[in-house]
Amino acid sequence: MLSEFELIRRYFARPAKRALLGVGDDAALFRTTRGSAVAASTDMLVAGTHFFPDAEPEALGHKTLAVNLSDLAAMGAKPRCALLSLSLPSINPHWLQRFARGFLALARTHEVDLIGGDTTRGPLNFCVTILGEVPPAQALRRDAARAGDDVWISGTLGDAALAVAHGKRRIRLAPRELARCRRRLDRPMPRVALGLALRGIARAAVDVSDGLAADLGHICSRSGLGADIEIERVPRSSVMARFAASALAREALLAGGDDYELCFTASPRRRPRIITLSARLRLPLSRIGTMRVGRGVRVLDPNGNVLALSRRGFDHFG
Amino acid sequence: MLSEFELIRRYFARPAKRALLGVGDDAALFRTTRGSAVAASTDMLVAGTHFFPDAEPEALGHKTLAVNLSDLAAMGAKPRCALLSLSLPSINPHWLQRFARGFLALARTHEVDLIGGDTTRGPLNFCVTILGEVPPAQALRRDAARAGDDVWISGTLGDAALAVAHGKRRIRLAPRELARCRRRLDRPMPRVALGLALRGIARAAVDVSDGLAADLGHICSRSGLGADIEIERVPRSSVMARFAASALAREALLAGGDDYELCFTASPRRRPRIITLSARLRLPLSRIGTMRVGRGVRVLDPNGNVLALSRRGFDHFG
Repeated sequence: MLSEFELIRRYFARPAKRALLGVGDDAALFRTTRGSAVAASTDMLVAGTHFFPDAEPEALGHKTLAVNLSDLAAMGAKPRCALLSLSLPSINPHWLQRFARGFLALARTHEVDLIGGDTTRGPLNFCVTILGEVPPAQALRRDAARAGDDVWISGTLGDAALAVAHGKRRIRLAPRELARCRRRLDRPMPRVALGLALRGIARAAVDVSDGLAADLGHICSRSGLGADIEIERVPRSSVMARFAASALAREALLAGGDDYELCFTASPRRRPRIITLSARLRLPLSRIGTMRVGRGVRVLDPNGNVLALSRRGFDHFG
Repeated sequence: MLSEFELIRRYFARPAKRALLGVGDDAALFRTTRGSAVAASTDMLVAGTHFFPDAEPEALGHKTLAVNLSDLAAMGAKPRCALLSLSLPSINPHWLQRFARGFLALARTHEVDLIGGDTTRGPLNFCVTILGEVPPAQALRRDAARAGDDVWISGTLGDAALAVAHGKRRIRLAPRELARCRRRLDRPMPRVALGLALRGIARAAVDVSDGLAADLGHICSRSGLGADIEIERVPRSSVMARFAASALAREALLAGGDDYELCFTASPRRRPRIITLSARLRLPLSRIGTMRVGRGVRVLDPNGNVLALSRRGFDHFG
């Protein structure tokens, strides 16, 4: 049987291209660009809670890194390095090879060095720490929104939640619809380029991982403000459009989670630049509401009536 | 029941003293000293593999951070920030409070800000990423040893392994001996001050977590050298001394693990400075051998004969 150390080397060790020192020492070393601060975030994914133990390993490797890159994107930070800790019940070389392939392919795309980690025996668990850099004055903090800011969202929301609803037999998607929604759920594309482009344009940002209402709620509470969202403006995919104004569609849009789009606020004066940016990145950017004096997220129907939400997001111990 | 977010706030959120932005955003931000590189390391601790589920939570919180600080110490890096991810089967506020107390007390001692983390439901698992800084040319890398270097070790080795052996009924310690050995096992003190003081003095360093032979073996393989250790010179505590030259004592000394002392190499010209340093830090520093051209760690008895090792360290998948 492979030893722990051979295992790491075989599947995960790649020469660090930009770091000073990668895997293989007590700690890794990397240098940041002058004037930049280090941005650091961590996410833990547990079998049974975040994914099924029989999930496709390449997609799992991709998603494990993607959810972390999404956090840096929401800070406007450039990703630099990642550390990956794995707890595994046993060693399955074929599984590990595929997991590593998914993880490392996305790392390459974003010029991220895998500089360290840990492997141990135990229940299936992945923990990634992502490190990036951003000039501190340009960081897209949750506490920087101002009353009167527009609220924007990238891409479309709700498809990942539809895939989950299909899995739970709450809805029935056609095979082509399911494939599209599963792709959103299993292989989210973190909006790194958008986060970088929003430096100097956006004020506050958050990535939508727990659902729009919950995550925009973090901007509200950290900025000491409220937000009004017009539900008709929340962008939906063609699959989502089929469910129109059903309660399930609303829930998927506002509280579905796993979207990994960026929700950000910006002064109304920035609208032309944001529209230009959307064209340049070929990524829909939709203005969905306004930050206001007050507390909490209100969702308004086309008549301006406040909608009640059944679920405000996903909370592991709620 | 407390929500996930309230839970984090209540037990772990402390104002970041030195970081630019701590817990509560998509990522934390901190600035490094000019000329320094970021040093990053991560360790995952799993119930049943690294600790017993009924372990004393304050000690567990301490050790979870200590093993990570030990990695930075072995790089000569100054600790700055930590991120802590927790997977918990359920929420036990009393348990969490005590875990946090142990973790945060050690963090305070070393001026470490807890700047981020994640909590999730799942089998008990802690993953810490520690971030520090060191001028890259002064980092104590594993690959920097030279043939002819002295090999040094801090403190004493083997006590933690004796506590484990007592737990497995392989030996019987007196209550006072057990208390002493348990303290080494449960509350290791990372040699951060020593690591910092060794900048510019030591060439290579490693922390002894898997046993002296295995960890010095990492310096050997990364430096392309071998090492000779004189077993009589390996420092042992008064408890350890009672077991003298027994096979168990040898195993505990050379392959016991969980010591969290620093093993480092330095030019023989550095002996006077290292002896002065030992006095200043009030920490025994023992010269135990020599780096040589060749491969692997050889352990020599007082007659110069090579000893065979029953176990070369601890490997989770070995």
